[in-house]
Amino acid sequence: MIHTNASGAVESLGLLPDHASLIVHGPDRPGIVAAVADVLRDRGANIVTLGQHSDNPAGGAFFQRTVFHLPGLSAALAELEAGLDRVVRDGLGLTWRLRDLSTPLRVGILASKSDHCLLELLWRQRRGELPITVPAVISNHPDVADHVRFFGIPFFHVPSAGADREGPEKEMADLLVGNVDLVVLARYMRVLSGDFLNDVGVPVINIHHSFLPAFIGAGPYRKAKERGVKLIGATAHYVTEDLDEGPIIEQDVVRVSHAESVAELTRRGADVERQVLARAVLWHCQDRVIRHHNHTVVL
Amino acid sequence: MIHTNASGAVESLGLLPDHASLIVHGPDRPGIVAAVADVLRDRGANIVTLGQHSDNPAGGAFFQRTVFHLPGLSAALAELEAGLDRVVRDGLGLTWRLRDLSTPLRVGILASKSDHCLLELLWRQRRGELPITVPAVISNHPDVADHVRFFGIPFFHVPSAGADREGPEKEMADLLVGNVDLVVLARYMRVLSGDFLNDVGVPVINIHHSFLPAFIGAGPYRKAKERGVKLIGATAHYVTEDLDEGPIIEQDVVRVSHAESVAELTRRGADVERQVLARAVLWHCQDRVIRHHNHTVVL
Amino acid sequence: MIHTNASGAVESLGLLPDHASLIVHGPDRPGIVAAVADVLRDRGANIVTLGQHSDNPAGGAFFQRTVFHLPGLSAALAELEAGLDRVVRDGLGLTWRLRDLSTPLRVGILASKSDHCLLELLWRQRRGELPITVPAVISNHPDVADHVRFFGIPFFHVPSAGADREGPEKEMADLLVGNVDLVVLARYMRVLSGDFLNDVGVPVINIHHSFLPAFIGAGPYRKAKERGVKLIGATAHYVTEDLDEGPIIEQDVVRVSHAESVAELTRRGADVERQVLARAVLWHCQDRVIRHHNHTVVL
Amino acid sequence: MIHTNASGAVESLGLLPDHASLIVHGPDRPGIVAAVADVLRDRGANIVTLGQHSDNPAGGAFFQRTVFHLPGLSAALAELEAGLDRVVRDGLGLTWRLRDLSTPLRVGILASKSDHCLLELLWRQRRGELPITVPAVISNHPDVADHVRFFGIPFFHVPSAGADREGPEKEMADLLVGNVDLVVLARYMRVLSGDFLNDVGVPVINIHHSFLPAFIGAGPYRKAKERGVKLIGATAHYVTEDLDEGPIIEQDVVRVSHAESVAELTRRGADVERQVLARAVLWHCQDRVIRHHNHTVVL
Repeated sequence: MIHTNASGAVESLGLLPDHASLIVHGPDRPGIVAAVADVLRDRGANIVTLGQHSDNPAGGAFFQRTVFHLPGLSAALAELEAGLDRVVRDGLGLTWRLRDLSTPLRVGILASKSDHCLLELLWRQRRGELPITVPAVISNHPDVADHVRFFGIPFFHVPSAGADREGPEKEMADLLVGNVDLVVLARYMRVLSGDFLNDVGVPVINIHHSFLPAFIGAGPYRKAKERGVKLIGATAHYVTEDLDEGPIIEQDVVRVSHAESVAELTRRGADVERQVLARAVLWHCQDRVIRHHNHTVVL
Repeated sequence: MIHTNASGAVESLGLLPDHASLIVHGPDRPGIVAAVADVLRDRGANIVTLGQHSDNPAGGAFFQRTVFHLPGLSAALAELEAGLDRVVRDGLGLTWRLRDLSTPLRVGILASKSDHCLLELLWRQRRGELPITVPAVISNHPDVADHVRFFGIPFFHVPSAGADREGPEKEMADLLVGNVDLVVLARYMRVLSGDFLNDVGVPVINIHHSFLPAFIGAGPYRKAKERGVKLIGATAHYVTEDLDEGPIIEQDVVRVSHAESVAELTRRGADVERQVLARAVLWHCQDRVIRHHNHTVVL
Repeated sequence: MIHTNASGAVESLGLLPDHASLIVHGPDRPGIVAAVADVLRDRGANIVTLGQHSDNPAGGAFFQRTVFHLPGLSAALAELEAGLDRVVRDGLGLTWRLRDLSTPLRVGILASKSDHCLLELLWRQRRGELPITVPAVISNHPDVADHVRFFGIPFFHVPSAGADREGPEKEMADLLVGNVDLVVLARYMRVLSGDFLNDVGVPVINIHHSFLPAFIGAGPYRKAKERGVKLIGATAHYVTEDLDEGPIIEQDVVRVSHAESVAELTRRGADVERQVLARAVLWHCQDRVIRHHNHTVVL
Repeated sequence: MIHTNASGAVESLGLLPDHASLIVHGPDRPGIVAAVADVLRDRGANIVTLGQHSDNPAGGAFFQRTVFHLPGLSAALAELEAGLDRVVRDGLGLTWRLRDLSTPLRVGILASKSDHCLLELLWRQRRGELPITVPAVISNHPDVADHVRFFGIPFFHVPSAGADREGPEKEMADLLVGNVDLVVLARYMRVLSGDFLNDVGVPVINIHHSFLPAFIGAGPYRKAKERGVKLIGATAHYVTEDLDEGPIIEQDVVRVSHAESVAELTRRGADVERQVLARAVLWHCQDRVIRHHNHTVVL
C-alpha cells in the first residue's frame, strides 16, 4: 500500500515533535510579551518563532503567536497550562490557547462535483505539505468517489434532498461530530444552515470563487465577465451564518483579458481557488489565524 | 528652459511619424481581416502590429486594431479614408476610426488635493512615456499649483462652490472644450454631472481607489480595512453618469496585511493608483481601447 | 471506467472541430497579412483569432498565428495547403505550418521521483484543460507508477544505469519515436544527450526550478537561499544540447522571505513549477509558440 | 515656501515621538525574548511591534526587532542602554542597537542622468512617506539639478574625471562624511571604490536594474532581451566591494513579452526600480533590515 501515513507520519506531514504554538489574545496593555516569555522560559521552553500584533497600542487588541520547543512537551503540558491560566488569564485578563504541533488536525472535507480544490488538498496531504489527517470526504455527488478512495480516504455520498436541508445536514453532522477538528468546503455548492454550523461545533472554512466582497453569491465568473474586470480572484474565509460575509483568511487574483470566455475564466479561477484554499487550510492548521470581530490576524 | 518638448518632441513623446492606428469594430462576419488588409496594402501601407478579437465567431462582435506605416501619411489620408468608407463602412457594415500616431493627444487633467496621480502623469509626459500634451491642469484646491507650473504646464484654480456644481463645471468646460481630446480625473474628488460630460464631449478617464466592483463609492480604504481584505487595488475606467460603473480599462492590486492601518493602506494604494492610471492613459492615447457595451477590449 | 476520454473527447479536451491554426514566419515585408488573409478567405475560412508580431518592421522577422474555422476542414486541407505553398512559401518566401485543432497532440512525459509536475499535467488532461493524449509516462524510478496507472495511462520504468546514458536513452527512444508529437520533462532529473534529442525528433519541453538565467544547473533552491533572493521562480523552456540554455517559453516567480528554509523554498517553488509547466505545454499544444533563434514568440 | 518640513515634521515624515526600535542579533540560545522583554518592561517601555527570526533554533543565529513606546524616551535612554549592555551584551553575548524613531535619518543621494529613482525618493520624502532628510544630492551630470532644487534640496555637481576615480570620490566624501547616515545610489552609474566605501563609513544602498543574480553587470535589459526572459526585475542591495554581490534587501519583477523592445523593457523596468528602491530605503530607515553574512533579514 503506497499512501499510508502510518509510520514516518511525523516527517511526512510537517509535524514537529515537542513543539507547540501558543496564541495569546485580548486587550493590549504593557508587559504582555515579557510575562508570556517568562512563563515559557521558567518551564524550559525555547521560543522558535514569535509574531505579534497590536491594532492600537493605546488601548486596542493584542495578538501574539509563539511557537516553542519543550523537550518532553506532553508530560510538561499540565504545569505549563496552569502557569498560563495564572499569569495570562488571571493576571493579564487575556485568553490563550495552545496547540500541540506534533499532532495532525483532523479535517473533514465537503465537496460537490468539482474536484480541483478537493484533490489539491488530498494531494498536498499525501505529499506531507499539510499537517492533517482526513477522516472523511463527504459529497452530494458520487463523481469524486473513486479518486478519493484511491488516496486511501473514506468517501461518503450524502445526496441533496431538494429544499430539505435538515436530513442531509443531520447525516453529515453524524459523520463529522467528534471525528474532526475542522471542516473544509472544497467547492461544496450548498448553503449550510446555522443549525448545522452549531452542531458541527468546529471551524468551517469555505473557498469562494471571487475576490470578495466583489461578486457575492452565485455565478461570480459570469458576473466578472459581465462587469469586464481585468483580474479575477478567490477568497478563503471562515463560514458564518451570513453567506460570503465571514472573516477572510486569504485571497489572491490572476490577470485576465477580454479574450477569455466565462468557461476560461472558470478554469483560470480554479487555479487560484486551489492555491488560496491550500494556504488558508495550512495556516489554520498551524494555528496562525486569529479571529477578531469579522477579521483575521494571520501571524 | 529645461522641460520643453519643442524640438525632438517626436522621439521624446514616443510619437511615430507616418504611422497610424486603425480601429475596425462591428458585427463579426467572414472576410473582414482580408478586406481591411487589402485596403491598406493597395495604398502602400505596411502593417506593423495587428490585434484582433471576436467575442463570438458565430455572430458576435468583431474588434481589430491595426498599426501601419505609410510614408507620406498625411498626404495619403484622404484617399485612404475614402477607401475605408467604401470597403469597411459601406461594404462590411462596420465602423472604423483612424488616429495619426505622429500627433500627441491633448489631455486636460482635473485634480484635487492629492498630487500622486497628477505628478505621475506629468512626470511620465516629460520623460517621453506618454504621447500627450497637457494644455491645462484644473483643481478645486491650489495645493498642487507650484508643482504643476514647475513642469511648465498651465494651472487653473476652479474652487468648488458647495452644492452648486453648475458654476464650477461651466468654468471648467470653458477651459476644456475645443482644447482637449481627453479628460483625466487624477483623484478629482467631485462627482461630475451628466451635463458636464456632455458639454466636454471627449472621453473622461477616472481612477477609482479600489478594485471595482468592490468598495464602490467613498472611503474604499476604510471599507477594505473593515472587511479585512488581503489585497487592495485600483481601477481606471471611463466615466459615465453612473458613478463607478463605467467601462473598466485597467486594474491592479497589491497584497496587504492586518498590520496596516487605513493610512498605510491609503499610501500603499496610492502606488497602485499611479501605475494603473498611467497604463490606462497610455493605452487610450495609443488608441488601444475599444468600448463595447459596458466593457473594454484592449488590443 | 471513470477516466475515459472515449466519447465526448472533443469537448473535454478543449478540441475545436473544423478549426486549424496557421503559423507564418520569416523575413518581414509589406503585404503578408493581406496575402494570408486572401488565401484563407478565398477558400471559405473565417478567421477567429489573429496574432502578429514583427521584431523590426524595417527588415526584421515576421511572425503570425491565425486560427480559422473552415467547415469540412479535413476535406479542404489539401487545396488549402497548396494555396499556402504557392502564395506564402513561393510568393513571399516565408515558412508556414498548419495544425488541425480538432486532433489532440500526443505527449510523452518523462519523470523521476517527484510527482508534482507530472500529476498536474495528468490531472489537467483528465479535466479537459490540455488538448493532449498521453501514450506513455516513463520514469527512472517506480514511485509514481500507481498514480499514473490510476489515471489509465501506461507507465514504463526505465531505470538509470549510472554513467551509461546510452542504454536507457535507447529504451526510452524505442517507446517514444513515432508515438508522440512532444516530450515533456516533468522534473526528470537526468541530462539527455544530443543523440537522444535527435533520435526522438520532436520538441522537448523542460521545467527548470529557477528563474533562468539565475541559478543555472543543480540545486537552485539551495543557491537561492545562499544568495538571499526575495523571489524564487521556475522556467519552462525547449531543451537543446546546451543545458538550461534553450528558448524560454514561460516563467513565473513567487515572493519568499528569510524565514523559509531550503525545504520550504522547494515546496513553494513546486507550486510555481506546476503552473509554469502547465501553461507552457498548453501554449505549445495550441501551437502558440514560435521559436526564433534562441527566443520564443508566444502569440 | 512650499516644501518645508520645518514644522509638523514629525507627522509628515512618519516619525514616532518617544518610540525606538531595538535590534538584537547573535547566537541563538534559550531565554533571549524573555530577557529583552524584561529589560524593556522594567524601564516602563511598552512593546508595540515584535518580529523575531532564528535561522536554526538548534544553535543558529537569532534576530529580533522590537519597537517600543517609552514616554520621555530621550531622558531614559542612558539607563536603558546600560541595561541592554548588562543583560543582552554581557549576559547573553549578543549585539544590540537602538534607533530613536522620532529622528529622521540623513540620506545622501548619488545620481547620474536618470531621474526616475531620484525623483521617486524626493517625492516620497516630501509626501511624508520616508522618515528622512536629504542634505545632499550629488550627480556627475547637471541634468537633474533644477528638479532637485525645486524640492528645496541642495544639489552638487561632481563631474566624473575619466579613469580617475580618486578625485571625484574625495570630493563626494567631503560632502557626505559626517552629514549623512546612509548613502543611496539612485541609478548612479559609476563603480565606487572600496576606499570610498570605507571613507564614507555609512551603509550604501544601490538599485540594480535586474533580478540579481541574473544579468549581473552592465546592460541588463539588453541581456534580458537577448535571453528572451518573460519577466524583468530590479534588486536593491547593500553595496560591497564586490560589484552586484552585496546583501539583497528587496526585489521585484514585472511580466514582459516578446513584443517589447529594449527601450520598452528599460521603461517598464524603471517602474520596478522606483518601487523596489523606495521600499528598501524605507525599511532601512525603519531599522527593519539586519545584515547577516551576505544576506538580510527584514523584520
